[in-house]
Amino acid sequence: MIRLTLALDAMGGDFGPAVTVPAALQALAYHPQLELLLVGSPAAINPLLVKTDSVLLERLTVVPAESVIASDAKPSQAIRASRGTSMRIMLELIKDGKAQACVSAGNTGALMGLAKMLIKPLNGIERPALMTVLPHRQQGKTVVLDLGANVECDGAMLAQFAIMGAVMAEEIVGVNNPRVALLNIGEEETKGLDNIHQAAALLRSIPSINYIGYLEANELLTGKTDVLVCDGFVGNVTLKTMEGVIRLFLSLLKSSGDGGRQGWLMKLIKRWVKKRLARQFGHLNPDQYNGACLLGLRGTVVKSHGAANQRAFAVAIEQAMQAVERQIPERIAARLDAVLPKSD
Amino acid sequence: MIRLTLALDAMGGDFGPAVTVPAALQALAYHPQLELLLVGSPAAINPLLVKTDSVLLERLTVVPAESVIASDAKPSQAIRASRGTSMRIMLELIKDGKAQACVSAGNTGALMGLAKMLIKPLNGIERPALMTVLPHRQQGKTVVLDLGANVECDGAMLAQFAIMGAVMAEEIVGVNNPRVALLNIGEEETKGLDNIHQAAALLRSIPSINYIGYLEANELLTGKTDVLVCDGFVGNVTLKTMEGVIRLFLSLLKSSGDGGRQGWLMKLIKRWVKKRLARQFGHLNPDQYNGACLLGLRGTVVKSHGAANQRAFAVAIEQAMQAVERQIPERIAARLDAVLPKSD
Repeated sequence: MIRLTLALDAMGGDFGPAVTVPAALQALAYHPQLELLLVGSPAAINPLLVKTDSVLLERLTVVPAESVIASDAKPSQAIRASRGTSMRIMLELIKDGKAQACVSAGNTGALMGLAKMLIKPLNGIERPALMTVLPHRQQGKTVVLDLGANVECDGAMLAQFAIMGAVMAEEIVGVNNPRVALLNIGEEETKGLDNIHQAAALLRSIPSINYIGYLEANELLTGKTDVLVCDGFVGNVTLKTMEGVIRLFLSLLKSSGDGGRQGWLMKLIKRWVKKRLARQFGHLNPDQYNGACLLGLRGTVVKSHGAANQRAFAVAIEQAMQAVERQIPERIAARLDAVLPKSD
Repeated sequence: MIRLTLALDAMGGDFGPAVTVPAALQALAYHPQLELLLVGSPAAINPLLVKTDSVLLERLTVVPAESVIASDAKPSQAIRASRGTSMRIMLELIKDGKAQACVSAGNTGALMGLAKMLIKPLNGIERPALMTVLPHRQQGKTVVLDLGANVECDGAMLAQFAIMGAVMAEEIVGVNNPRVALLNIGEEETKGLDNIHQAAALLRSIPSINYIGYLEANELLTGKTDVLVCDGFVGNVTLKTMEGVIRLFLSLLKSSGDGGRQGWLMKLIKRWVKKRLARQFGHLNPDQYNGACLLGLRGTVVKSHGAANQRAFAVAIEQAMQAVERQIPERIAARLDAVLPKSD
C-alpha cells in the first residue's frame, strides 16, 4: 500500500476545527493508506480528538500554527502577515516535501497568492486556475474552470486553462479526447468578448485539443462538453448561480406541501415520494462535489467551500487524494510541454 | 377603456408566426383594450388567422414586411441591411407613434442596435440595458439587468442600470424604496472588478438610491435585494445558468422513477405528488417570466426569448402592456433627470 500524506488547514472556513477535524477522522477511517497533518491550534484541535480510536490517531499529526488568516481579510495584506498562519504552514509542508497535497477552506485570494508564491506555477502557466468537476444529466461529468482565481483573463490564460482542463477530463473523469468549449453568450463566432475570441483562435491551432467552440451557460449541466472554460469572475458567478438554484429546489422539495389538511396516509406517501426524488437529485447537491483544485502549480492545492459541512470537507479531501494518485501536476506539466510553443 | 396598441415582430424567433400568431390571438382574447399590429409576411401570417373569430380580428392588423433578420446574423451587417425587415418596420411603428410598445423574439444584437438608432436613448443613458423580473423564494420579485445588451460596461453605465432598475422595482413590482445591489464574487469591498467598484462609489453618492452593496450569485433567488445589477455578459450567463438548472430539475421531476416495477396505485399516487410539486415549482419555470425589457429608450421594446413557445411569447406581450400602462420610459426619464448631475 502506497502511503499518501495530506496537509489540512484545520482552522480555515466558517466552522474551523468543528468541521475539519471530524472530516479528517472520517477520511482516515475510509482510507487506510492516508496520513494527515492537521495544521492549526492544538488547543482547538486536541479536545476534538479525545474520543478517537488510537489506531486512527497513529496516522494523524497535529502541526501547531499560532494564527489564522481571516476569511474576509484582504489577500495582499493577509499574505504579507501570513507567517505562522495555519494556511501558510500547510503550504510550506508541501513545499518542503512533507505532504503531497493540501486542503483549505480558508480565504481564496490568500490561498491563491500564497500557493503561487510557495509552490510556484508550472512552466507555461501565467496564473493557476480553480477547477471543479460538475455532474451532468447524462451521468457524466464536466470539468469547469476558472472558478474565481483570476477575475480578469487574457486569451492566452483561457487557452492554458483549457489545456489543464483537458488533462483533468482525461485523468480524473476518464474521457478520451475530451471535448473542450469556451463559455460564451452565444454560439456564433462574433459573440462575446475579445479575450474569448483570442482563446478560440489559440485553441483551434492546437491539434491535440478537441476544441468544439462556444457554449452558452444553459448547457452547463447538459453534458455537451467535457471541459468548459471561462474567466474567474464568470466562473464564480456561474457556479454560485447553479448552487443557489439547486439549494432552492432541494429546500422547496423538502418543505413543499407540508402544511394543509391531509390524512396521515397521504402525508406518509408524499414524504416517501419526496425522499425518493431528493435521492435522485442528490448527485446535484453542491456538497457532493465540494473542493476546487488550484491547477497549474507544482503541487496539489484544493480549496474547499468556506461554508462546507463535514461531508463536503471530506469530499474535498478525496479530491486532493485523487489528484495525487493520478499525478495531476506532473501530467499537466507534460501536456503543457508538448503543446505550448517553445521559448528559445 | 384606454386603447393600447402594440406592434409585434411576427417573424422573429425560432418558430416565427407558428408561435407569435397564436400568442397574439391569446393576448387579444384576454385583453379587450389591446390592439395588435402584426408585422411580417402576410403569406405566412394569414393562413393562421383563417379560423379566428372576426371580433378578435377587428383589433388585429397585419403590417406587411418583405424580409426577416436571421437570428444568427451579425448585428452590424443585419442593421445595415435592415430596411423592409419585420423588426425594423415594427420599430418604425413606435417611432412614428403608431404603436406604444413592441415585442420581438428576433436577433438580440440587431434589436438593440436598431432600437437605439430609431427610438433613441433617454437623456443621461449611454446604452440601453435588457432587464427582466425574476421570481424569488419569498414570493416576491427581483429586477435583474443587464442581461446581454452590453457585454462590457463601465461604472457609470452600471450605475445608470441601477437607477433604471430601481424605477422598475417601484413601478412594476410595487416595492417602496427598493434595495439595489451589484452582483459580485464576494461581499467585501475589495472583491471583483474595477467597474463594479466605480459603480458602488457612484451609487453610494445618490441619496435616493437604496444601495445595499454587493451580492453573490447564489443570492439570485433568495430575495435579499429588489434590484440586481451586472454587466450584460455576466447577466446573460447568470440567467442562462439559472434557466438551465431549472429546466433540468423540471425534466428530472417529470421523468424520475417512471420505470421499475410498481403497482398501479403507487404509480398513480406518485404521478399526483409529482404534478403537485411541478405546480409548486411552476413560478420558477422560465416560460413564466419570458420577455426582457430594453430599458433606457424613449419607448418600450421587449425582447422575447428566441425559443419562446406560445405561452412564453404571450407573457412577453403582457410585459410590454405593463410597461406602457405604468409609463416606464417616462418615469425612468423623470428619475434620471432628478438624480443625474446636470451638464451645463
